Amino acid sequence: MLNWDDPIASFSLAGQEQNKQVVNKTLTERIQSSSMQPVCADDKRVVNGKTDINQLAPFKYPWAWEFWLNANRNHWTPLDINMSKDVHDYQHRLTLEEKHVYENVLSYLTTSDILAMRNIGLAVMEKMTAPELQIYQARQVYEEALHTWTYQHCIESIGLDQGEIYNRYRVVPAINGKIQMANDKINSVLRPDIDLSNKDDLEDFVMSYLFFAGIFEGCWFYNGFSPIFALQRRGLMTGTAEQLQYIMRDEVLHCAFGIRVVNQIIQENNIKLDPKAISAMWQEAEVCEAEYANYILRDPILGYSADEHIAQFRFIANRRAKSLKLEAPFPGAENVLGWLDEQTNMRKEKNFFETRVTEYQTGGALNWE
Amino acid sequence: MLNWDDPIASFSLAGQEQNKQVVNKTLTERIQSSSMQPVCADDKRVVNGKTDINQLAPFKYPWAWEFWLNANRNHWTPLDINMSKDVHDYQHRLTLEEKHVYENVLSYLTTSDILAMRNIGLAVMEKMTAPELQIYQARQVYEEALHTWTYQHCIESIGLDQGEIYNRYRVVPAINGKIQMANDKINSVLRPDIDLSNKDDLEDFVMSYLFFAGIFEGCWFYNGFSPIFALQRRGLMTGTAEQLQYIMRDEVLHCAFGIRVVNQIIQENNIKLDPKAISAMWQEAEVCEAEYANYILRDPILGYSADEHIAQFRFIANRRAKSLKLEAPFPGAENVLGWLDEQTNMRKEKNFFETRVTEYQTGGALNWE
Repeated sequence: MLNWDDPIASFSLAGQEQNKQVVNKTLTERIQSSSMQPVCADDKRVVNGKTDINQLAPFKYPWAWEFWLNANRNHWTPLDINMSKDVHDYQHRLTLEEKHVYENVLSYLTTSDILAMRNIGLAVMEKMTAPELQIYQARQVYEEALHTWTYQHCIESIGLDQGEIYNRYRVVPAINGKIQMANDKINSVLRPDIDLSNKDDLEDFVMSYLFFAGIFEGCWFYNGFSPIFALQRRGLMTGTAEQLQYIMRDEVLHCAFGIRVVNQIIQENNIKLDPKAISAMWQEAEVCEAEYANYILRDPILGYSADEHIAQFRFIANRRAKSLKLEAPFPGAENVLGWLDEQTNMRKEKNFFETRVTEYQTGGALNWE
Repeated sequence: MLNWDDPIASFSLAGQEQNKQVVNKTLTERIQSSSMQPVCADDKRVVNGKTDINQLAPFKYPWAWEFWLNANRNHWTPLDINMSKDVHDYQHRLTLEEKHVYENVLSYLTTSDILAMRNIGLAVMEKMTAPELQIYQARQVYEEALHTWTYQHCIESIGLDQGEIYNRYRVVPAINGKIQMANDKINSVLRPDIDLSNKDDLEDFVMSYLFFAGIFEGCWFYNGFSPIFALQRRGLMTGTAEQLQYIMRDEVLHCAFGIRVVNQIIQENNIKLDPKAISAMWQEAEVCEAEYANYILRDPILGYSADEHIAQFRFIANRRAKSLKLEAPFPGAENVLGWLDEQTNMRKEKNFFETRVTEYQTGGALNWE
């Protein structure tokens, strides 16, 4: 057993190379050497940072910690919401056209949220070099999984054919188009040789993260719930709609967080995004969204049309572009679904405690080994 | 606009190559072709599977889904637990030796849980080819972040120097030894060229996952809380101890899940682990744990000693080895802390609702864009 001259440290050599190298230094010397200093917040970077990833505090990005705290305050699970009316509505009240909308929206969303989980968990989180960013993204990974559970819960409650619903994105081109565009983006950054110290690779990464935060979550998800909210407005499938309101609240935070991270990377690395590439991305996203809308709403339903869906996409796209300090991609687009913001924002607060069917079990049911 | 002959599909060509290739097939033909069939549960594999990762159901591993549901039932946050008595205890009741134990345990745990998050989120989850496994691991990634928040909450509540506590694992060799062993394991599988279809790489991965589940979470974490539980037993730092009881409950699930996955991989791939490598791993883990125990408990505290800590490690190690169908690494090791299982299992259920200070905010506080 070796004893150090500093009273707070004593250790034996267990073959760790690192220990061997420092055995002749005192603890005080080691702390004073720059490589052993605690992390300085100013040195942190979103990507390509050199500070120790294992030291959470001090924070350089306190807003990321606020996102984390807020997300935890928003905790919910699909079991909190009563689905029994939806079972009845689906069997006895929905028209064939409305069933077509409902099933395909679920089919699209369920595939999308697994993709969203894989994007943030596998393609994004590892590249962050400030732990406070990874911490929120860890919650985000979990929330995407929670959403997947929610769709599964809806599919099971209604009694739909799970395998067929999950598989639909592969056999219906109008759903596949959106998934394919997202897959292309994730694949552009999931390659093992990506190196963010290389400028082109970093721009690929920023474009992909911008797509997932601003378009995939910020427009497609946000807009993706509207057809169900249109049913909810007429008193149909209200359990599913309430589930989607919770999901939407999460997604709005994901979008806002992602946009903030993207803006921060652009600022820290003096990146100039190619306006043509940005413009092409918005156009492709619109084409995909239009195909999707024309498929799910090929036969109109009461109070909601493909044209309104597409117009709403353009309106929301402009809103996201503004947050990203980009030109509006669809100048003049109008808010054609005036009821949507109001419904998604207000009804939730009013009804939540009346409509929940179970107490939160969190912390109550103890399962030990 | 192209119209398909199948009534449920119509789409336009948006330049997606995949769409072009199938334009001449009917939807029915596409579904019947094997590549477009829904996923068959029997085809799923833990690693190296070829089934579509985007299709959650049908489940091949329903136990993984049960872990997911259980983990969600266990939801808690550090804000649920009153820390005010701990502030008083730390300032007025702890001896210098007990403060030394308390601070270094926190310092070890906080670094360890960030590492645990990075292991499961970056090194493990991406390699799973059945989505029901990824779903539980998404929750696990989040729980590790929740634990990091908990330590941060304790450090802030007590008023310790955050930067110094977070940095301690780098300057105190007895803490660094354990972190270094874990870093070596994570680095052995985080390399970009790892290929699990290669037998050696797969064995590296299994050894690393086995280490993290069976030793890092199953022994070191489990055992790592005991010094604080020893304080709790004497009515000291009871808020922190209650936080750690929740963390311990999560970690026990992580350990059990990881061991189940490791056993499944071994079975599906006919792997024979090298008994010498396993034995060396247990021995290294014991050396690291003994150094750590001798450091944090170099001066004895009432009711808990380094020797008891090390003996308890050996006892728990045998328990984990049995779950992993491995030989007991420390034959004859005894349960020297008989009070521990009882205290960690029982007191929680009895006291939880009495000691919580806030109602769960989950779902109650709505923050919209």
